[in-house]
Amino acid sequence: MAQLIDELFIKHFDNELLRQHNDQALFKLPAGRLAISTDGHVISPLFFPGGDIGSLAVHGTLNDVAMSGAKPLYLAAGFILEEGLPLADLEKIVISMAAAAKGAGTPIVTGDTKVVEHGKGDGVFITTTGVGVVPDSVTISGDRAEPGCAILVSGSIGDHGVAIMASRENLQFQTTIVSDSAALHGLVADLVATAPTALRCLRDPTRGGLATALNELAKQSGVGMVIDEAKIPVRAEVKAACEILGLDPLYVANEGKLVCICDAAAADDLLAAMRRHPLGQDASIIGEVIVDPHGFVQMTTAFGGRRIVDWPVGEQLPRIC
Amino acid sequence: MAQLIDELFIKHFDNELLRQHNDQALFKLPAGRLAISTDGHVISPLFFPGGDIGSLAVHGTLNDVAMSGAKPLYLAAGFILEEGLPLADLEKIVISMAAAAKGAGTPIVTGDTKVVEHGKGDGVFITTTGVGVVPDSVTISGDRAEPGCAILVSGSIGDHGVAIMASRENLQFQTTIVSDSAALHGLVADLVATAPTALRCLRDPTRGGLATALNELAKQSGVGMVIDEAKIPVRAEVKAACEILGLDPLYVANEGKLVCICDAAAADDLLAAMRRHPLGQDASIIGEVIVDPHGFVQMTTAFGGRRIVDWPVGEQLPRIC
Repeated sequence: MAQLIDELFIKHFDNELLRQHNDQALFKLPAGRLAISTDGHVISPLFFPGGDIGSLAVHGTLNDVAMSGAKPLYLAAGFILEEGLPLADLEKIVISMAAAAKGAGTPIVTGDTKVVEHGKGDGVFITTTGVGVVPDSVTISGDRAEPGCAILVSGSIGDHGVAIMASRENLQFQTTIVSDSAALHGLVADLVATAPTALRCLRDPTRGGLATALNELAKQSGVGMVIDEAKIPVRAEVKAACEILGLDPLYVANEGKLVCICDAAAADDLLAAMRRHPLGQDASIIGEVIVDPHGFVQMTTAFGGRRIVDWPVGEQLPRIC
Repeated sequence: MAQLIDELFIKHFDNELLRQHNDQALFKLPAGRLAISTDGHVISPLFFPGGDIGSLAVHGTLNDVAMSGAKPLYLAAGFILEEGLPLADLEKIVISMAAAAKGAGTPIVTGDTKVVEHGKGDGVFITTTGVGVVPDSVTISGDRAEPGCAILVSGSIGDHGVAIMASRENLQFQTTIVSDSAALHGLVADLVATAPTALRCLRDPTRGGLATALNELAKQSGVGMVIDEAKIPVRAEVKAACEILGLDPLYVANEGKLVCICDAAAADDLLAAMRRHPLGQDASIIGEVIVDPHGFVQMTTAFGGRRIVDWPVGEQLPRIC
């Protein structure tokens, strides 16, 4: 069985480093700082509209690496399998993962598999780690937002979370919405090429959604933010689904969107660069960074008032990624 | 709760990169090739004589990185927590993990935490990824064993597996044996310093034990091996425990030992270097590499005959690491 699984991985992830059968991968890196990020994926269900745990485990980690401005280069993958997982399901996941890695140009060069007893896991958990290299000219970090900076989002929010909620079998709810799960490093490369020094913060608003990502950035940078509800792209179907489910799209997870904070002077150029990329066609400038010692994120609502967009209370959607 | 956990990690793993609160860590690396390895840890029980899942998750991955001849530099950690895990247990694990990382000089610079429902996990699973750098002068790989090479092991085998078996509550079995869980990169550095070009293969015989590690290396290199049972260090208590449990120590897991294959001319120097290191005091030259198109590992037994040391059949000890 163990051998069968190993062969499955080597067959589909096929690359020279993995075929060496060592317990580690060795490679030369281009010049620059190393960026590393790791993410556990425990999404339920394993298969959902727009992807599965395999493609998500590639995109989720690549995106975290890319949010430093890095070009992601290689992936490592650790699988925890529950006894009883149908081999056909595992193969489907591995094939999807291999396709996502190939599409992103980031081979899975080393890995590990563990098996736990039935009832001690849930099908499969996948923890991926990505490495990439950031050119020395680029300095993107969550603590670099300053008053006057513009806040951009690369597209419509909430698609991933709503797609997952809809696909959970205990919800009697149908929708055409699919997860936005995608690798964002191509979009990031375009932004870096457009205005390398004007880019200050990048973050992918996954668990906790846009509201959480903005609050994190405001806290890290010690600033406030004002965003405009009317400027935030939300699909009509997502808005409708959120109303039915009692969710606020600002807090719903995304897996193929990014928030960008940049010098105001470069905002229009970066917006144009986003819109030229297939993953940024619905990009929008949604607000600006302000002075605020409390670090509040405020939103001008459709009714003209302002409200605080607070940190999420509790976990809205468990096992969303 | 999520915040509490994050604070726990940042408090104990404390380092500058982690405190930046970005979704990735960025750092400069010394010159050389990057070595990366990832390992999931699902050991049961979480606490055992000689360690716990936290220290094991550091040692296990560092050792895989070190087996390339690399100096491990940084770690990433992904936690999958089961609802209901006592926070005190998690803190104990995190403190032990932090101590192991500090002791090894390899800070945990980025991480991730996911929570799954009670009954969908088993306390905590920890997937760690390590990166290090291999000097250009060093080429250690599982496919470099050649007929005539010597085979060394750094110490007594089977300690980890027997310690875990003894601590499982369903076994009415007591022993003084503790796991050998330890970080081996200091020992590897001494070997590299002693005979950098004579070192051919290094492997830590974890799951599947010495027998599996030797079979893997024989297969990768396309060679046979002959080892001498009398030369293989096994503690008397481990031997006794294995007899009671019906186990063969050759197949029992280790977490602080390595197998070294080297040019015969350098074997005595490397043996002496191992014995000077606290983790290699019981090191021994156990056999040699031979020509064998079948890739068999043979053992001269205590009775003077020879038997094949085969690949393990099935998994002897589930969730041993």
